Amino acid sequence: MTIEELIAAARNGSTRAAGRLLSLVESPRRTEVLTALGRHVARVIGITGPPGAGKSTTIAVLVAAYRERGLRVAVLAVDPSSPYSGGALLGDRIRMAAHINDADVLIRSVATRGHLGGLAEAVPAAINVLAALSYDVVIIETVGVGQSEIEIAAVADPTVVVLNPGAGDAIQAAKAGLLEVADIVAINKADRDGADQTVRDLHAETDAPILKIVASRGEGIVELVDAIDAHHRADTPERRAARARSQILSLALSAVRTRPDLDALATAVADGEVDVYTAAASLFTSANVNENPLSTLQ
Amino acid sequence: MTIEELIAAARNGSTRAAGRLLSLVESPRRTEVLTALGRHVARVIGITGPPGAGKSTTIAVLVAAYRERGLRVAVLAVDPSSPYSGGALLGDRIRMAAHINDADVLIRSVATRGHLGGLAEAVPAAINVLAALSYDVVIIETVGVGQSEIEIAAVADPTVVVLNPGAGDAIQAAKAGLLEVADIVAINKADRDGADQTVRDLHAETDAPILKIVASRGEGIVELVDAIDAHHRADTPERRAARARSQILSLALSAVRTRPDLDALATAVADGEVDVYTAAASLFTSANVNENPLSTLQ
Repeated sequence: MTIEELIAAARNGSTRAAGRLLSLVESPRRTEVLTALGRHVARVIGITGPPGAGKSTTIAVLVAAYRERGLRVAVLAVDPSSPYSGGALLGDRIRMAAHINDADVLIRSVATRGHLGGLAEAVPAAINVLAALSYDVVIIETVGVGQSEIEIAAVADPTVVVLNPGAGDAIQAAKAGLLEVADIVAINKADRDGADQTVRDLHAETDAPILKIVASRGEGIVELVDAIDAHHRADTPERRAARARSQILSLALSAVRTRPDLDALATAVADGEVDVYTAAASLFTSANVNENPLSTLQ
Repeated sequence: MTIEELIAAARNGSTRAAGRLLSLVESPRRTEVLTALGRHVARVIGITGPPGAGKSTTIAVLVAAYRERGLRVAVLAVDPSSPYSGGALLGDRIRMAAHINDADVLIRSVATRGHLGGLAEAVPAAINVLAALSYDVVIIETVGVGQSEIEIAAVADPTVVVLNPGAGDAIQAAKAGLLEVADIVAINKADRDGADQTVRDLHAETDAPILKIVASRGEGIVELVDAIDAHHRADTPERRAARARSQILSLALSAVRTRPDLDALATAVADGEVDVYTAAASLFTSANVNENPLSTLQ
């Protein structure tokens, strides 16, 4: 199938064609696909938090809430250790089972395959594909233990951090830098002991609104959806430009991190053969680049 | 004075000439000074931690320990909010008073003047100047609340994180990413309650050796110096290359962050006029650069 045929099939409801397009924008054919699609915009919501906090359950009830409004929803689960090659459907996620047969819900794993910066490269293009296929809302789930969240925060509006009551999650979230990127904090399983104390502790660490939810029973979800809406409505050109700036920097850093000559430069600096300023500058001189270090991105 | 005259004066013991050279390598004349000096190597020790942890006290006793061995010591205090223009002597630091009149100890504040990435640019050159002026050991103090530590960790071997007993410092250190860059953790004021508990808590978070010290009484300093020596002796070509790689990436990121066209690109992306991949790629095309975005660094 040509790219135009894939787009037509995906727009006619073929999830297989949609999946193929999403794989293509992670390949050297990205520009070709994006050009054929044109530019499209969707609402992007980031959901992050430590393992076990209940992100998938929270997402499942959020999906239901948006479906009740008649919106089409795509879920991208970013899993650096995903065993799926290129991102298979997450049919094994019990919590999502209710949505598996809903044609207006697409659930997909984005495997970053261990590439540093892979996420920064893959996600903006995937969002454009999903928006072009008339998904109104794109929910991005990250595992919340590394760099991914900062990159997702540059794309998402808002970023929701899901934590459980107790000091453990709060410390882990602080350590991973989650509190700095949080636009909204949701304390899930808030019927457990210590939820109020956790809310108080977190108020000392972040200015973001902090909500208590029990996702498995749907408690607090109306308020969470309202908080997400309120944050989105409050978006400004300045905030959009700040997010775009972060995305550009993430991509640029990703481009230099994946430069084939970086290890040789590092060794030369370590051995005293070249100073670090000259080495860094050489990353920007075309003599060392096949025209453009970001050429693989375009 | 010419640069050659400044170098001669500094080598003859003029701290004023040394200070002038350190200022010059933060200016567009950096390359000129570095070329005149040639390449020199010093041992670099990073000291970081939350405000109030006792970093200056710890450094004062470390300086005394190295002086007893006959080594010349320079201290660079990185203070992003420093009121000193270009970095004055820190004569007001009471703890350092003992060393103020020691000709073999140089104490200087590096003001990064709010430039993003300023530290990544300023510090390697400053270390080269100090090494050329026969300082054997360079101790770099950072405030331990931001990005500075990651950049210093790329230069220092080892990075020592100073904390106090109690959960507060541990959480703050985790939040700032200090535990990830720590080669050695020193629990200062370890005569206070809770020191052993803090050691246990931190062992769960880091593999780095954890020492208890009371810097104000000199307790545990012999062990700290031994741990610093042991870490330094265990250095390998691979570790040196990894640090060089981090320095190169920091400089490259700093170069794109300070690009004059970055804000305009971000606005264009936010307004949908250009996609983020094209915007990032344009940072690497010479058409948008006056030859080289790192030209100000050279």
